[in-house]
Amino acid sequence: MSQGPVRAAIIPAPNQPIELQEFDTPALEPGAALLQTLFSEVCGTDVHLHHGRLTGVPYPLIPGHVSVGAIAAARGPITDVLGRPLHEGDVVTFLDVHETCNQCYHCRVTKQTTRCPARKVYGITYGAEDGLLGGWSDAIWMKPGVKMIPLPSELDPETFIGGGCGLVTALHAIDRGEVRLGQSVAVLGVGPVGQSAIAFAALSGASEVIAVGDPADRLAFARRMGATMTLGLDIPASDRAANVRNRTHGFGVDLVIEASGSPDAVSQGLDMVRDGGRVVVVGHYTDNGPVSVHPHWQINRKHVEIRGCWGSDYSHFHRAVELATRFGGRVPWREMASTRFPLEDAGKAVEAVEQQRVLKATIVPS
Amino acid sequence: MSQGPVRAAIIPAPNQPIELQEFDTPALEPGAALLQTLFSEVCGTDVHLHHGRLTGVPYPLIPGHVSVGAIAAARGPITDVLGRPLHEGDVVTFLDVHETCNQCYHCRVTKQTTRCPARKVYGITYGAEDGLLGGWSDAIWMKPGVKMIPLPSELDPETFIGGGCGLVTALHAIDRGEVRLGQSVAVLGVGPVGQSAIAFAALSGASEVIAVGDPADRLAFARRMGATMTLGLDIPASDRAANVRNRTHGFGVDLVIEASGSPDAVSQGLDMVRDGGRVVVVGHYTDNGPVSVHPHWQINRKHVEIRGCWGSDYSHFHRAVELATRFGGRVPWREMASTRFPLEDAGKAVEAVEQQRVLKATIVPS
Amino acid sequence: MSQGPVRAAIIPAPNQPIELQEFDTPALEPGAALLQTLFSEVCGTDVHLHHGRLTGVPYPLIPGHVSVGAIAAARGPITDVLGRPLHEGDVVTFLDVHETCNQCYHCRVTKQTTRCPARKVYGITYGAEDGLLGGWSDAIWMKPGVKMIPLPSELDPETFIGGGCGLVTALHAIDRGEVRLGQSVAVLGVGPVGQSAIAFAALSGASEVIAVGDPADRLAFARRMGATMTLGLDIPASDRAANVRNRTHGFGVDLVIEASGSPDAVSQGLDMVRDGGRVVVVGHYTDNGPVSVHPHWQINRKHVEIRGCWGSDYSHFHRAVELATRFGGRVPWREMASTRFPLEDAGKAVEAVEQQRVLKATIVPS
Amino acid sequence: MSQGPVRAAIIPAPNQPIELQEFDTPALEPGAALLQTLFSEVCGTDVHLHHGRLTGVPYPLIPGHVSVGAIAAARGPITDVLGRPLHEGDVVTFLDVHETCNQCYHCRVTKQTTRCPARKVYGITYGAEDGLLGGWSDAIWMKPGVKMIPLPSELDPETFIGGGCGLVTALHAIDRGEVRLGQSVAVLGVGPVGQSAIAFAALSGASEVIAVGDPADRLAFARRMGATMTLGLDIPASDRAANVRNRTHGFGVDLVIEASGSPDAVSQGLDMVRDGGRVVVVGHYTDNGPVSVHPHWQINRKHVEIRGCWGSDYSHFHRAVELATRFGGRVPWREMASTRFPLEDAGKAVEAVEQQRVLKATIVPS
Repeated sequence: MSQGPVRAAIIPAPNQPIELQEFDTPALEPGAALLQTLFSEVCGTDVHLHHGRLTGVPYPLIPGHVSVGAIAAARGPITDVLGRPLHEGDVVTFLDVHETCNQCYHCRVTKQTTRCPARKVYGITYGAEDGLLGGWSDAIWMKPGVKMIPLPSELDPETFIGGGCGLVTALHAIDRGEVRLGQSVAVLGVGPVGQSAIAFAALSGASEVIAVGDPADRLAFARRMGATMTLGLDIPASDRAANVRNRTHGFGVDLVIEASGSPDAVSQGLDMVRDGGRVVVVGHYTDNGPVSVHPHWQINRKHVEIRGCWGSDYSHFHRAVELATRFGGRVPWREMASTRFPLEDAGKAVEAVEQQRVLKATIVPS
Repeated sequence: MSQGPVRAAIIPAPNQPIELQEFDTPALEPGAALLQTLFSEVCGTDVHLHHGRLTGVPYPLIPGHVSVGAIAAARGPITDVLGRPLHEGDVVTFLDVHETCNQCYHCRVTKQTTRCPARKVYGITYGAEDGLLGGWSDAIWMKPGVKMIPLPSELDPETFIGGGCGLVTALHAIDRGEVRLGQSVAVLGVGPVGQSAIAFAALSGASEVIAVGDPADRLAFARRMGATMTLGLDIPASDRAANVRNRTHGFGVDLVIEASGSPDAVSQGLDMVRDGGRVVVVGHYTDNGPVSVHPHWQINRKHVEIRGCWGSDYSHFHRAVELATRFGGRVPWREMASTRFPLEDAGKAVEAVEQQRVLKATIVPS
Repeated sequence: MSQGPVRAAIIPAPNQPIELQEFDTPALEPGAALLQTLFSEVCGTDVHLHHGRLTGVPYPLIPGHVSVGAIAAARGPITDVLGRPLHEGDVVTFLDVHETCNQCYHCRVTKQTTRCPARKVYGITYGAEDGLLGGWSDAIWMKPGVKMIPLPSELDPETFIGGGCGLVTALHAIDRGEVRLGQSVAVLGVGPVGQSAIAFAALSGASEVIAVGDPADRLAFARRMGATMTLGLDIPASDRAANVRNRTHGFGVDLVIEASGSPDAVSQGLDMVRDGGRVVVVGHYTDNGPVSVHPHWQINRKHVEIRGCWGSDYSHFHRAVELATRFGGRVPWREMASTRFPLEDAGKAVEAVEQQRVLKATIVPS
Repeated sequence: MSQGPVRAAIIPAPNQPIELQEFDTPALEPGAALLQTLFSEVCGTDVHLHHGRLTGVPYPLIPGHVSVGAIAAARGPITDVLGRPLHEGDVVTFLDVHETCNQCYHCRVTKQTTRCPARKVYGITYGAEDGLLGGWSDAIWMKPGVKMIPLPSELDPETFIGGGCGLVTALHAIDRGEVRLGQSVAVLGVGPVGQSAIAFAALSGASEVIAVGDPADRLAFARRMGATMTLGLDIPASDRAANVRNRTHGFGVDLVIEASGSPDAVSQGLDMVRDGGRVVVVGHYTDNGPVSVHPHWQINRKHVEIRGCWGSDYSHFHRAVELATRFGGRVPWREMASTRFPLEDAGKAVEAVEQQRVLKATIVPS
């Protein structure tokens, strides 16, 4: 890593142009480390951040919540969760959710740390004034206790970045969906979360994986991720539901994963799922408005389960690295973020994602 | 049982006056039996039936889906599910859902017989032309294979009839809710299903059981069923939700059971439940229209589960008899149907239920 | 199907030579059918049957519990579970467990029909005196209500017969194991159930699938079924457990499936599983004696779950056909029963299985 | 709290007489507090500690893992898990398991913190050299981060101490057992864990709660805790199992909780449970040797689940306080520790527990 000041791309304020800024390298307290950034993800959340759609974000902000870096410096012995020592030069990723308090009702009683109000997220809830705590930067400051995971040599870092936060979120959603071998799955939405959900449904042994969304090139990519059937949004919603039921002997799929962010998709998912099936709602990370549902026909009589799925925790991140390692040769995650941008073009990267020219973009600082 | 023709109260057609009609006693095929009716329930479903609000009902109809009778005649050896022989004179109840096919996708693959399209229900989907297959009658024809359950001597039949179909449905709902010892529960709706849901939540060791509904006398009764707090509908919905959260340290209850039939209650339940909690929707047996829900705030971000709950099967009926036996001394189910009507006043019984003058009524033929 | 008498291979009594016998074709009652047998399985159960190791078997017996045939005759309209009509000429398999009573405590209260005492099984609990109710025969009598499943044209019948009853049983075991994407699995035993369990663990997205057993050629086959590591029984048991822990960062696998029939394997599985993991015991279809386990070290302190897994029901059979259809091109089930025997050599087929010269054998009547 | 040195009862080394020793009050770091001990529990674990039967215990030891005290001093603002501020004078209990690391595989991947190797336990794994970290003392040092729970005014502290660690452990066991309303439960062992398991089974709405153990006075107490039937160990084991099956229509109970510490009880529990039922093994906190089980008859064919249950975490402690508050008037927990001993008689208290003269004893320092 070159000496001297560290460059980072920042969002100065909502809807302001993204610009480069220089930072000092942090003094490392015991247990801290510094990563030389190799790759950092640009995803839809960054578009939301650029437009100020999330609350509690302390602008100016260094975005970049999922990244891969090489340990450039470390103070004191640091180990990963499995107890393996980490060394300078190791290529690692890290859990962007740095802090859950392990003290509150959510952490200790209901054990759903994703709802801990104290959680701090690299690239989202830490601001530039907090330090180098975002990935769109030459270097990232690993505060003590940040969970770093070494990437096995057989895992291409860009495969992991291609999956990125969508891969982790989709894993949580698949877990919530409790898909079983041979079941049928419909995934609504073919963005990064939807694409990884499709891959995970297929890897879980689903007999059918139906992808619903657009545009056409994303549906084509969905087939490569494992979809056995695709339905574009040019087909009217009621026809899409009828198509799904026809494909499943008239009953509907065992599991729907809503990963579109469209409120209507929740209702449409209920029309596609079989009686007694499950609908996981994971696409509504931001507020896109309400939807009308029909308690008698769509919930009560159908005896279905609708499960919200919020965020992800270390366990999902840990298993996501394992899954990318094991299946990265089979699933084309790498191609999901194949468009690289240097640090100074971070604004263009966000634009490419916003305009859906790419599923994701990758920031490559050097 | 007196010889001669058998009287039954029938609904000739939707919205027609209920009248008495005489029937011959059926010739019993092997495995069949005839019950002398002791008590038969009049519940909200019968009001729906009187107004023609359910589909697939073959009028003229002998209503009465949950009943208690004494075996007046039986052809051949008949046993209950536990293998105990049944004899003339035994006081029994029986599963109103006579037929599930055990041949279809729902019965054999997804194992949710409540969705079997072939199911036949005494007092609802059998018509008077099919024979004495409803409880508002001097006698009820037990077709071969109908599951009869002898009432233990320590179970007062009117305790069971007081709980009736609502007791069975509420048990299914509590199972779907997976309430755990010490959790908090809100029950929306204080009709028969809601009242039994309150009792079952309390019997399951819930720390708080909050009843929401009206009128005041039903809320008062809810306290006797086990509610620890009541909220009337005169309190605005948002205040009710705030009250529930205040009672639960600001978090909301672990479980909501919607047993009101109001579409809005689904949304209100989502506002009352804690992050990661469960909302069971059991009140929408008929179509009362749609409701607007907010996927971001009410489902995705809250990480909740919404579970529809349709009908009930033999296992619920079986356990309901056990629970009424075990806890009938503590829970005032008997009072829920304490207003008795002779067969000839069946129309008045329906009227009393419709006007909410009673939670339920009981038909006592002789 | 040629006219005239039907030949069947029978076990006259335990340990007697298997011989051919002629039967009349049955008169078909409404809802019945006759299959021309295409393939019938010979598996370890048949070896047990030949030696009289199962109780309640009415010799003389026509063995053959999993078979594929073409409908030669059918009386009246017959549909499959999905409501599709079946026609003469259709190639089908059928659930060997013909009768569960749908009346008893197991069928109706606990809903585990595999424990129904009334269940009747083709080729096992029906004897030759009951008629053509085993697969080692030119023809098989489908009694009314037998669940036939048409094999899709893309499913090679021998692929399904290769998997056979082991495929169905292994699916039940995998369900009981609730394997999750990316978890690690050890399968103890590499007979037919173990081999399919290995395949299903891999198809479920397990990161590691460790096969334990012998001989070497079965371990080699296990790799082709999806095993990522194999351990022969020449390695001492404690070393095998150490190997499994080493492969899993010292913790042990998330799931063990015991499919060996060796009592010691239950204890060995407990030594291989991680704290909080699961051990499914499916290999003990017959009584092979007791095992010593250590409640403190192996159960209580480890916080594990041990789950017995008995038999299978229609849902497993149904899904097994779907899975063989979907994944039969990838998983070499077909090779598991690649040694064909004509009907007159059924005794040699049993011998080949008993001597472990083949994983399974196939009877091909014509 | 009286000024001056603090007295504590210590076990100097295994099997040495318990003696009083004086300690300085600790200097409180930010977030720390000092409790004036009101009550501290003496349970079977303390007998084990006195005999040196647990590993990793740093003698000399101040025992006492579950205690109630009044906050005598606090440094800085301290809140409980619900965010409520704690003040001097508040009567609190606290989670004895002070430290789980929130960094390891068990804490972060499998989410079973009871298996965290870094966990530190007041009165067990902290020694006297670590400071006032046991309850048999005039004062207890609350290190920063220790989870204190204020006792509501309606909860008599001695009710909570009477239940004590057994109440918390039993709650975990009941959770693992997933008891459902109306099910039947057998509890093997009538020590403190067994007694609370009986109470919790009854509070969960079990229809039958069968207590198995001795001596007679503990069985009599079990009835007061909620048992509906008791079986003494003077009845031969096979007769006990037959009695249990007779009570349950020949099928066996839905759930067995083994809380006896006897290896044979695991096998006996398997003989008492119904097909498809659950056996929770919670009594084997220490090594009492192996047991012979029969995989075919007791596990595989019965299709049962055996679940180990290790320790407990904050969630159980939290809910235990709620349950003691809610149900302490109905369940006689208070009487379980009604024999009080002053600090100087701690040795006699251990003796009384060891000789089973009392279920538990309470140390009351002043």
